Amino acid sequence: MAKENRISMEHGAGGQLMQSLIGEIILKNLTNTKAGTVGLESLDDGATIALDRSFLSDNPNAELVMTTDSHVVKPIFFPGGDIGKVAVCGAVNDLAVMGAKPLAVSSGMIIPEGFSITDLEKIVQSMDAALNEIGVPLITGDTKTIEGTALDSIIINIAAIGICDAPVRDCGLRAGDKIIVSGFIADHGMALLTKREGFEFNSDLESDTAPLWKMIEPILDVKTADGKRAVTAMKDPTRGGVADALNEMAQKSKVCIRVYEEKLPIRETVHVSCEMLGLDPLEIANEGKAIIGVHHDCAEYVLGLLKQHSYGRDAAVIGEVVDEKPGKVILVSALGSTRYVDVPTGDPIPRVC
Amino acid sequence: MAKENRISMEHGAGGQLMQSLIGEIILKNLTNTKAGTVGLESLDDGATIALDRSFLSDNPNAELVMTTDSHVVKPIFFPGGDIGKVAVCGAVNDLAVMGAKPLAVSSGMIIPEGFSITDLEKIVQSMDAALNEIGVPLITGDTKTIEGTALDSIIINIAAIGICDAPVRDCGLRAGDKIIVSGFIADHGMALLTKREGFEFNSDLESDTAPLWKMIEPILDVKTADGKRAVTAMKDPTRGGVADALNEMAQKSKVCIRVYEEKLPIRETVHVSCEMLGLDPLEIANEGKAIIGVHHDCAEYVLGLLKQHSYGRDAAVIGEVVDEKPGKVILVSALGSTRYVDVPTGDPIPRVC
Repeated sequence: MAKENRISMEHGAGGQLMQSLIGEIILKNLTNTKAGTVGLESLDDGATIALDRSFLSDNPNAELVMTTDSHVVKPIFFPGGDIGKVAVCGAVNDLAVMGAKPLAVSSGMIIPEGFSITDLEKIVQSMDAALNEIGVPLITGDTKTIEGTALDSIIINIAAIGICDAPVRDCGLRAGDKIIVSGFIADHGMALLTKREGFEFNSDLESDTAPLWKMIEPILDVKTADGKRAVTAMKDPTRGGVADALNEMAQKSKVCIRVYEEKLPIRETVHVSCEMLGLDPLEIANEGKAIIGVHHDCAEYVLGLLKQHSYGRDAAVIGEVVDEKPGKVILVSALGSTRYVDVPTGDPIPRVC
Repeated sequence: MAKENRISMEHGAGGQLMQSLIGEIILKNLTNTKAGTVGLESLDDGATIALDRSFLSDNPNAELVMTTDSHVVKPIFFPGGDIGKVAVCGAVNDLAVMGAKPLAVSSGMIIPEGFSITDLEKIVQSMDAALNEIGVPLITGDTKTIEGTALDSIIINIAAIGICDAPVRDCGLRAGDKIIVSGFIADHGMALLTKREGFEFNSDLESDTAPLWKMIEPILDVKTADGKRAVTAMKDPTRGGVADALNEMAQKSKVCIRVYEEKLPIRETVHVSCEMLGLDPLEIANEGKAIIGVHHDCAEYVLGLLKQHSYGRDAAVIGEVVDEKPGKVILVSALGSTRYVDVPTGDPIPRVC
């Protein structure tokens, strides 16, 4: 490929070439870059976010929510997404599971010398598409280039700012709550593994990478009979999978979670390939799922709301919070036998996210 | 060094080992981790920031300001700082030059396998020290590890959120304004070069890396006789140095900036080493300086305020905005000859920031 189609060190060095890189490649592939009076196109030292003052004055507990997520993914393009989509979704989903409406995101890219500019454009386009799905602008960014000998692929950090009525915590589970997962688990990790290792089986498997805000927004308003928020806790089961997320929720909430194996939504292809490779689908990463604790009286209603959104179509109640062994997650098999679900000690599939 | 003192791949894989890495190394070295009801110690999906509602209701133009900055620096420890300090200062200074009070920052770290845990602790400690100088909490973070074959040193992204009465822009210069630089230029780039290349000369040279908010805060309130903000534009001259920053301000403001060579604060050691190496100090990176456009009536007063702060002690008026050649920066020598200051096309010292 001609030299002009590759990133060179001068692109990240400050000065004119970097300006043209940002201007021509990144800006032209983004459609929503403004959240206040100063947007990305100003290429100023930062950007501004206007605040809905009526929202703030009506909600004494309203707070901003901030999160950050860096992504190194191999391969960078995979069935169902790419590093740009997963970086955006990783950050905005962290806001969503805290009950926060995303207001804006920033992008910090580290690009190795020699990286394909065509690939960079595709990545920015998929960031843009994911952000547009939930109406969130990318308002400020930073791009550094690095010698190809020092880094072997692109790294993207997305920080995100949102606003919430009151944050939904990891630690809010109470005995009696139902546990919902918003769809099929382990698709992301298994799709990447399939692509990376060139396995022939389940070649139709796609990553679940998706921005979840529009699916989550309606369930935040559901109230119990005594006027409390029905959703008690939420987490996205990314690295470490459902096993890690459930354990963290159980430990922080000081409760026990019982999960019923036959209720877990797992695709047949994922199930089969996990069996073949000796992997536990509970430990495999997801990038478009939420685990949701809901007051038992509202669980079916919340489930119904989730199913109305395409990303929640396969949502299921997978278990409940019980008043025993605090901090533990227990998996109940179809035959009624039980085992503890342990915290994964390491990623079975390194560098999938 | 023993294996326990190095980062291993499992540290970044999600699950228990990562929790211990975050908990034991990062959290224990940070003293200010909360800006709202949910802070870093919760290790939730994000963190919250409480908002001063009275400030917002009193200021119809008040907006949030967001910025992001990724740092790859070699060497990671250098005279006057390290990658942690420079990453924090890079982000919070971007807020400061937009006139925004920093509220909180996030940290996204990519750490290569084999990285020294002792070095990581030192880096977090200096992030903490820089943040404490300006009273800003680090509220949320993300840590990924990566094979040592894929990345050769640590990368730190800091995103920052602040709030401003009204943003100070790059593009606000008007004919007649004075141009102030807040101290000696080119120290950062030359200190790194000296350390990296092992030059014997100017071995006492230190990077200027510093968080500038407390120096900048007082000048934002200075008003002209007709009640306008005296500061018309501001920028921190990092990559590309003063040359790049001045050109950007001139182009965006559609004005011409005249700079007087003999007014430029340049240390003798920096001057001599730039001469020896054929480098232009105007093109060398700074990490603790601001370039400030000020209404001419207020320039001496603003200069006096800057000099009251240790980081502004050597501040100087270096030029003015004139009503000719829009978008150009003209350097006037001591003898009165002039030349255009060009936009640097590439960094003369790659990877200093």
